Amino acid sequence: MAETKKLSIIAFSGDFDKLTAVFTLATGAAAVGYEVNLFFTFWGLDAIKIKQGRSFVGGNWLTKIFGFMMGGLHVTPTSRFNFCGAGPKIFRSLMRKNNVATLEELVEAAKVLGINFYACEMAMHVLGLKKEDFIPEVKDVLGVASFLKIADGGQTLFI
Amino acid sequence: MAETKKLSIIAFSGDFDKLTAVFTLATGAAAVGYEVNLFFTFWGLDAIKIKQGRSFVGGNWLTKIFGFMMGGLHVTPTSRFNFCGAGPKIFRSLMRKNNVATLEELVEAAKVLGINFYACEMAMHVLGLKKEDFIPEVKDVLGVASFLKIADGGQTLFI
Amino acid sequence: MAETKKLSIIAFSGDFDKLTAVFTLATGAAAVGYEVNLFFTFWGLDAIKIKQGRSFVGGNWLTKIFGFMMGGLHVTPTSRFNFCGAGPKIFRSLMRKNNVATLEELVEAAKVLGINFYACEMAMHVLGLKKEDFIPEVKDVLGVASFLKIADGGQTLFI
Repeated sequence: MAETKKLSIIAFSGDFDKLTAVFTLATGAAAVGYEVNLFFTFWGLDAIKIKQGRSFVGGNWLTKIFGFMMGGLHVTPTSRFNFCGAGPKIFRSLMRKNNVATLEELVEAAKVLGINFYACEMAMHVLGLKKEDFIPEVKDVLGVASFLKIADGGQTLFI
Repeated sequence: MAETKKLSIIAFSGDFDKLTAVFTLATGAAAVGYEVNLFFTFWGLDAIKIKQGRSFVGGNWLTKIFGFMMGGLHVTPTSRFNFCGAGPKIFRSLMRKNNVATLEELVEAAKVLGINFYACEMAMHVLGLKKEDFIPEVKDVLGVASFLKIADGGQTLFI
Repeated sequence: MAETKKLSIIAFSGDFDKLTAVFTLATGAAAVGYEVNLFFTFWGLDAIKIKQGRSFVGGNWLTKIFGFMMGGLHVTPTSRFNFCGAGPKIFRSLMRKNNVATLEELVEAAKVLGINFYACEMAMHVLGLKKEDFIPEVKDVLGVASFLKIADGGQTLFI
């Protein structure tokens, strides 16, 4: 009697290449029947903001600065060989040329595959973000205890 | 018959934001009854040194340099948007303003919650650190095999 | 009846210190009887390329540039305190002085211990690498689904 397997990922990094790893693992696992839970925290929250592109979201000037610097998937750098922002462009180009799904396509696939998106309550407090700032696919805002309960019994990765 | 759940974290990074993630997860898990094991290695050892602030610990000049550069929680940078050292200050300010525990408060909470602190033997050898350089809460110095035994049967994260 | 325990590591980072962590954990686990699976992806692929040293592998000029910049274990930087490339040299020196195995020795130990090396199909497509570019110890080229099957029932880390 096969039980549903589970993969949970704490998506902490906002780097283009690491987010690509998050969504590649997530969609790959969902495609073979895993329950997949993504818990976005800190810089990873960048991936689920509605306003992609630099914008001053957040309650005060400090959080607004972070809001501006974390400009979403279109401006996120790579963790290595960023070449002043050209890194992600090169990657996108290589991905298209080699018929590999781009990060944006992977995010869309994740939505279609019914992957669960969660946002970290604590990081949202720190960065001045509200649930309304995120895409509607974000199911819930969670603390650590609730996340651990959801992830229990499966594999958990921190990326 | 509920068995105690277990969370073990290999704290490799010395970045302010990643250490915040380590201690947020650790204290959150301990608060709901998890056994939590923190295994500090490489830059993560910074978090458990007694002498916080830059100081020349270590046996020879090379390790002394690392000792100086790894100046503990008060000088550790953020992995992103460090702004020449202002990043952690901004974070601390945001955390206080938004009533989120600061990193130092989280470390204190971890001690009170009885979280197990371990130091990595190999990294201590490389960086020239001794058990006496660490806070008394560090229970033991471990190699990989001993750590795996302690972490066995729970979730393990590498941060 | 003791079952074989399993440790699987997704080796994403190409940083000298993180690769050292990968191989320290891997060899430590293998030494106490674990089945160990290393899944190299993105910058981590650097560790298993035959041509160590900078070389223009890859199909087109873009991937050739990555091939050049990812010059293998001898030129990979540390994630912190790289000092324009001196970081890894300092580490190697400290490791020798303190009788800790260097990264290259750890990789050799991993081969001897029968650790399983796998390469990530998707990242190979993006970076224009072929199975022939890797050391013969690389057992197979895998997608996410196959890796999850191999890692199932053990601990999995993302480094």
